[in-house]
Amino acid sequence: MGAAPVAPVAIVMGSQSDWPTMQRAAVMLDALGVAYDARIVSAHRTPQRLVAFAQGAEGEGFKVIIAGAGGAAHLPGMIAAMTHLPVLGVPVQSKALSGQDSLLSIVQMPAGIPVGTLAIGEAGAANAGLLAAAILATGDAALAERLKAFRAEQTAAVAERPA
Amino acid sequence: MGAAPVAPVAIVMGSQSDWPTMQRAAVMLDALGVAYDARIVSAHRTPQRLVAFAQGAEGEGFKVIIAGAGGAAHLPGMIAAMTHLPVLGVPVQSKALSGQDSLLSIVQMPAGIPVGTLAIGEAGAANAGLLAAAILATGDAALAERLKAFRAEQTAAVAERPA
Amino acid sequence: MGAAPVAPVAIVMGSQSDWPTMQRAAVMLDALGVAYDARIVSAHRTPQRLVAFAQGAEGEGFKVIIAGAGGAAHLPGMIAAMTHLPVLGVPVQSKALSGQDSLLSIVQMPAGIPVGTLAIGEAGAANAGLLAAAILATGDAALAERLKAFRAEQTAAVAERPA
Amino acid sequence: MGAAPVAPVAIVMGSQSDWPTMQRAAVMLDALGVAYDARIVSAHRTPQRLVAFAQGAEGEGFKVIIAGAGGAAHLPGMIAAMTHLPVLGVPVQSKALSGQDSLLSIVQMPAGIPVGTLAIGEAGAANAGLLAAAILATGDAALAERLKAFRAEQTAAVAERPA
Amino acid sequence: MGAAPVAPVAIVMGSQSDWPTMQRAAVMLDALGVAYDARIVSAHRTPQRLVAFAQGAEGEGFKVIIAGAGGAAHLPGMIAAMTHLPVLGVPVQSKALSGQDSLLSIVQMPAGIPVGTLAIGEAGAANAGLLAAAILATGDAALAERLKAFRAEQTAAVAERPA
Amino acid sequence: MGAAPVAPVAIVMGSQSDWPTMQRAAVMLDALGVAYDARIVSAHRTPQRLVAFAQGAEGEGFKVIIAGAGGAAHLPGMIAAMTHLPVLGVPVQSKALSGQDSLLSIVQMPAGIPVGTLAIGEAGAANAGLLAAAILATGDAALAERLKAFRAEQTAAVAERPA
Amino acid sequence: MGAAPVAPVAIVMGSQSDWPTMQRAAVMLDALGVAYDARIVSAHRTPQRLVAFAQGAEGEGFKVIIAGAGGAAHLPGMIAAMTHLPVLGVPVQSKALSGQDSLLSIVQMPAGIPVGTLAIGEAGAANAGLLAAAILATGDAALAERLKAFRAEQTAAVAERPA
Amino acid sequence: MGAAPVAPVAIVMGSQSDWPTMQRAAVMLDALGVAYDARIVSAHRTPQRLVAFAQGAEGEGFKVIIAGAGGAAHLPGMIAAMTHLPVLGVPVQSKALSGQDSLLSIVQMPAGIPVGTLAIGEAGAANAGLLAAAILATGDAALAERLKAFRAEQTAAVAERPA
Repeated sequence: MGAAPVAPVAIVMGSQSDWPTMQRAAVMLDALGVAYDARIVSAHRTPQRLVAFAQGAEGEGFKVIIAGAGGAAHLPGMIAAMTHLPVLGVPVQSKALSGQDSLLSIVQMPAGIPVGTLAIGEAGAANAGLLAAAILATGDAALAERLKAFRAEQTAAVAERPA
Repeated sequence: MGAAPVAPVAIVMGSQSDWPTMQRAAVMLDALGVAYDARIVSAHRTPQRLVAFAQGAEGEGFKVIIAGAGGAAHLPGMIAAMTHLPVLGVPVQSKALSGQDSLLSIVQMPAGIPVGTLAIGEAGAANAGLLAAAILATGDAALAERLKAFRAEQTAAVAERPA
Repeated sequence: MGAAPVAPVAIVMGSQSDWPTMQRAAVMLDALGVAYDARIVSAHRTPQRLVAFAQGAEGEGFKVIIAGAGGAAHLPGMIAAMTHLPVLGVPVQSKALSGQDSLLSIVQMPAGIPVGTLAIGEAGAANAGLLAAAILATGDAALAERLKAFRAEQTAAVAERPA
Repeated sequence: MGAAPVAPVAIVMGSQSDWPTMQRAAVMLDALGVAYDARIVSAHRTPQRLVAFAQGAEGEGFKVIIAGAGGAAHLPGMIAAMTHLPVLGVPVQSKALSGQDSLLSIVQMPAGIPVGTLAIGEAGAANAGLLAAAILATGDAALAERLKAFRAEQTAAVAERPA
Repeated sequence: MGAAPVAPVAIVMGSQSDWPTMQRAAVMLDALGVAYDARIVSAHRTPQRLVAFAQGAEGEGFKVIIAGAGGAAHLPGMIAAMTHLPVLGVPVQSKALSGQDSLLSIVQMPAGIPVGTLAIGEAGAANAGLLAAAILATGDAALAERLKAFRAEQTAAVAERPA
Repeated sequence: MGAAPVAPVAIVMGSQSDWPTMQRAAVMLDALGVAYDARIVSAHRTPQRLVAFAQGAEGEGFKVIIAGAGGAAHLPGMIAAMTHLPVLGVPVQSKALSGQDSLLSIVQMPAGIPVGTLAIGEAGAANAGLLAAAILATGDAALAERLKAFRAEQTAAVAERPA
Repeated sequence: MGAAPVAPVAIVMGSQSDWPTMQRAAVMLDALGVAYDARIVSAHRTPQRLVAFAQGAEGEGFKVIIAGAGGAAHLPGMIAAMTHLPVLGVPVQSKALSGQDSLLSIVQMPAGIPVGTLAIGEAGAANAGLLAAAILATGDAALAERLKAFRAEQTAAVAERPA
Repeated sequence: MGAAPVAPVAIVMGSQSDWPTMQRAAVMLDALGVAYDARIVSAHRTPQRLVAFAQGAEGEGFKVIIAGAGGAAHLPGMIAAMTHLPVLGVPVQSKALSGQDSLLSIVQMPAGIPVGTLAIGEAGAANAGLLAAAILATGDAALAERLKAFRAEQTAAVAERPA
C-alpha cells in the first residue's frame, strides 16, 4: 500500500483566534486544488512544537509554509530560521495597533532569513494561499493553468461601472 | 546551436538609484549559483516597458520576479497584476519617510494579487535573493543543498561572544 | 447629427466597494453641473482595462481624471503614468490602517508623474469633485461663476454659534 | 502699449527656507515654457499678505496656485479657502517629523475646500510644476504637446539596465 | 446704561460637529465661574469671519482664545497669526486618523506664532478650559482660589482602591 | 531694603542636554524684556527637587512655568500636577523617535491637569517664551505693546520674494 | 500576635477606569498564589499620594510594583524615580491613539530610571502579573515550581489544529 | 576545589553589531558589582543555540536574562518562551525605522509570555542593567544598598542650573 498523500502546503498559526483570518488561505488553496495541512503552532506557548514542526517540515513533504500571527508575531520568522523552505508570513490584525506590530514583526527580518510577507489580515491570508500556489506552479504546469484560469475569472468578474 | 541559457530570476527596479540596494539580491543569487537578469523597469516613467516585461516574463523563461521600488512603489504590485509568476517585493528606503511609504505601497495588496514582501532596504533585497532561491529549490534538489550549505555557513559564522 | 456629448471628468475606482466613498465626487460634480463618467478600473485585477482607459482617456474627451483606491492604491499613479491629463487621487479608507496606506501609496509619487492627492475618505472624494471643477473652470467662465456661487452658499451656511 | 504679460502660475511659499524645495516647481515650469511668479507668503507671519494674495489671485490673472510649506503647514489650505482657483500643495520636509506633519496639515482638508497635494519635498515640488502645466494644458493645445514631449523624453531617458 | 459684561474667554470651533468635544471647555469654565463666548469660525469655509474674529478679539475684550478643529486643523494657528492674545488649541478627534492629523496641524507651529496645544478630544477640551482659567488666574486672585479648590476636590475624589 | 526682583517665568528642563533647545525660550523672553529663572529639574533623577519646585513655584513668585523634556517626558505634566499655575510644555527632540515620544508624553494629559504644549524642538521652545509673554501680557499693557511690536517686526522682516 | 501578612506585589493604576485592564494582573497573581495590594494612585490628580506610595513602598514590604496608566502615562516612571524596587509598566489602551501614547510615555525612560514595560492593554497587564511572579521566583523555589507548572499547563492547552 | 563562580545575569544579543548598544548594560552591572555573561545568540541565524541557551539558562545559574535585538527582534520573546526566568528586552535602534520595529517586536508579546521591555537604544540597555540589578536586589540586601547609593549619586550629579 502506498504512502498517504502528502500536502505540499502547511498553514500554521499562533492560536485558534487566528483561524478566521488564516482560513482565507485555505479557501484559496481549495479553489486551486492544492492540498494543505492546517495546524496551530505557537512560537511562544509551544516553542518545542515550533522547533519540531520547522525542523521536520521538509521531511513531512511540505514545499511551502504559510505562517500567520499577530502582535509580536515571531512565528513566521522563527520557522524560517529553522528551514530552507519558502516561508510566507501573514500579519494578523491586532487589537490595539491594528496589525502594525504584526506587520513589522514579520517583515523586518535581518539579511539571511527571508519571510515573504503579505498584507495585514484576510486579504493577506488569501494572498498567501495564492502565492503558495504560484510557487508550486513553478514546477507544476497544470497548477499554473489553474492559476491562470483563476486570475482570468477574477478579471472577468470586475463590473464595468459602479452600482 | 542550442538556445541561450535562460535566467530563472528577474531583478527589476524602478530606477538606477535603486541598484545599490537591489544589488544585494544579485550578490545572494551569485553566491547560490542562480542566474538572474537585472533590468530597470519604471512603473511610472516606462509603463509600456512594464506591461511588456510583466506579460512577457513567463515567455522569457523567468520563474520568479524580484521587484524593488521606493516611495509610492507600484512596480511589484503592477507586475504581479500581469503575471501569475511569484513576485517578491523589496521596499527601497525613501528619503523623507525612510521606506514606510515603500513598505505599505508594496505589502498592502488587495486579495487576489499577491506580492511576497521583504524588509525595507538592503536586508530585504538580500532576502529577496534568498527567497527566490528557496522557491526555485522546491524543484531543484541541488540548489536546495547549496541553500542548506549557505545557511549552515551562516550559522557557523556567528561568534559565541561579542568582541 | 452631432457626436454624443462628452463628459469632461472620469471618476474611476478600484472596486465596487469604493463607490460609497467616490460617489461624493459625483454628487459634487452634479451640484456644479459638470458631467462625468464613473467606471470601475482595477489596477490589479484588470490591468489591461487600466492601460486601455489611461491611454484612451484623452481620446475619449476627458479633461480631468479622478481616481480612488484603497490599501496599496496603485490606480491613480498608474493612470498618471499613461496620460498627461491631470489626475486627482482619493485615498479610500482601508480596514486595518484607516487609509494611511492608501494615502502614502497615492501621494508619494516620484518626480515626473504627478497625482494631486486629496484627503482620506469621503471628504477627499468630495474635494476631488470640487478640484476637478476648479480645473475645468480655468477655461470655463460660467463654471467659475457656479463654483463661486457654491462657495458663497457654503460660507453662508455656517451658523454663528454652536447649538 | 499693451499690458505686462501675465504669469498663469503663482508659486508661493511660507519662507525663504522653502525655496530650495519649491525651486523644483519653477525649474519644471521653465522647462515647459510656462510663466510663473514666485513669492513668499507666510500664513503665520504675514496673514494680511496671505489674505491679499489669495483674494487678489484671480484678479492678477493667475490660473493655478502652487503653495509649499512645512510643519503645521496652513498656507495651501488657507489660500484655497479664499479663492476658487485650483491650489496645489507641497509638503516641505520638516526637521523633526520629516514632513509627516506638513503632509497631514495640507492633505487632510475638510469637504468643501480642496488642495491637490503632492509628495513630501523636492519630488512633490517638481510634480506640482508638472501638474500645474497639465491643468493649463486642458485649455492650451500647444502646452499639451510640450507636456507630451517632456513625458516622452522622460521615458526615453530610462536606461534598460542598471550600471 | 453700562456696557454689556464682557466674556474673557472665546471658545471657537471649526464646525457644529466640534461642539460635543468643545463643550467640555465650556463646562469647565462654567464650573470655575469664568464667562465665555462660544462661536463657530471655520478657517476654511468662513475665512473672512476668521480674520474679523482674530483681528477683533482684543477689542471685544477677550483675554484668552480656545480654538478647536479637526483634520487639517488650521483654525488655532491662523487665529494666533492675527492676535497676540494667548491661543489654546484643541485637536478634535478625526475619523480616519483619530486626531493625529489634527494634533500635528495644531502643535507644529513655526517659531514666532505659538499655540498652546492640549490633548486630542474631550480631555483636551476640558483642559483648555482649565488652562484658560489658569491664565486668567495669574491676574485674578479669587479665580486662583477657585482653581485651587477645584483641584483639591479633584484630588479628593480619587478613590483609594479600585472597585 | 526691598525684596529681590522676582522673575515671573521659570524655565525648567530635565537635563543639561536640553539647554540648547530651551535656550530659545530664554532668548525670546530676553527680547521681550521678561525676566526668567532657568533651572534643571529632572522628574526622574531629582524627584524631590521636582516636588519642591512645583509646590514652591507660586510662593517664589512665578506666574508661568515653561518645562522642556525629551523621551518619556514627564516633567511638564508632573509640575502641572502640583501647581495651578499655567504650565507650557516643550517636547525636546529625542534620538530614536525624533521627539514623537516627547510630544505624546507631554500633550496627551488626562482631563483635569492641563499642559499647553508647543512644537517639537527649538521652534517650540521659542514659542513657549512667546506664549509665556502673551500670558503675562493679559495683565501687563506695556508688555502687550512690546509683544505687538515684536510681531510687527517679525511680519516686516518677511521678504516679498525668494532669493 | 504576629504582624499582618505582607503582599509582595503592589498593583497601582491611574484611575478606576484602568481596573478592567489591570485586573488581569491580579487574576494571574491569584492563579500563582502571590499576594498583591491593588490601589489607585494618580500621578496627576494625587501627586502627594504618588510620592507617599513610591517612597513608602519598600517600607510597606513590597518587592515588585506593577503600575498601569494611559495617555501621557507618567505613573510607572514617576514611581520608578522614587524607589529602587523593580517597576513594571502597563500601557493602558487610550481612546484616540489606542495606547501608542501610553506605550511611548512608559517605555522611553531615560538612562538611570528603568521601567520594564509590557504590551498595551490586557495582555500586558496579565504579563505584568507573570513577570512579577517570575521576579519573586528568583528567590522562591516553590513559586518557581508553580510558575513552571502554569507554563506547562499553558503549553498543554494549545490545540493541535484549528477548529 | 569549588565550582566556578556563577554570573546571575546573562546579556545576550542577536549580533556583534548590537554590542555597542548592549555594552551599556554591562557597564551598569559592572558599576553595581553584578557579574554577567555576554553572549551572541541569534534567534534567526543560530536557532539551535537559542534553544540550548534558553532551556539551559536556569541550569547555568542565571537569574535574569537581558536580551537585545533590532528589526524583527524575536530574541527576547523566544527566550521568554523557553524559560520562566525574568527576561528583559532591549530594542536596538534599527536603520530604516529607528527601532520602532524593534520596540513593537519585543513589547507586544501575547498574554502568557512576558518580556519586560526597556527604551530603544543605549538608554534602554543601561536601564536593563539597572532593572536586572533591582530584580536581584529583591533577595540581596547588600546589592539593594549599592543600588540606592548609585541612585543617590545620580541624583546628586544633576546640576541646579544649565550652563
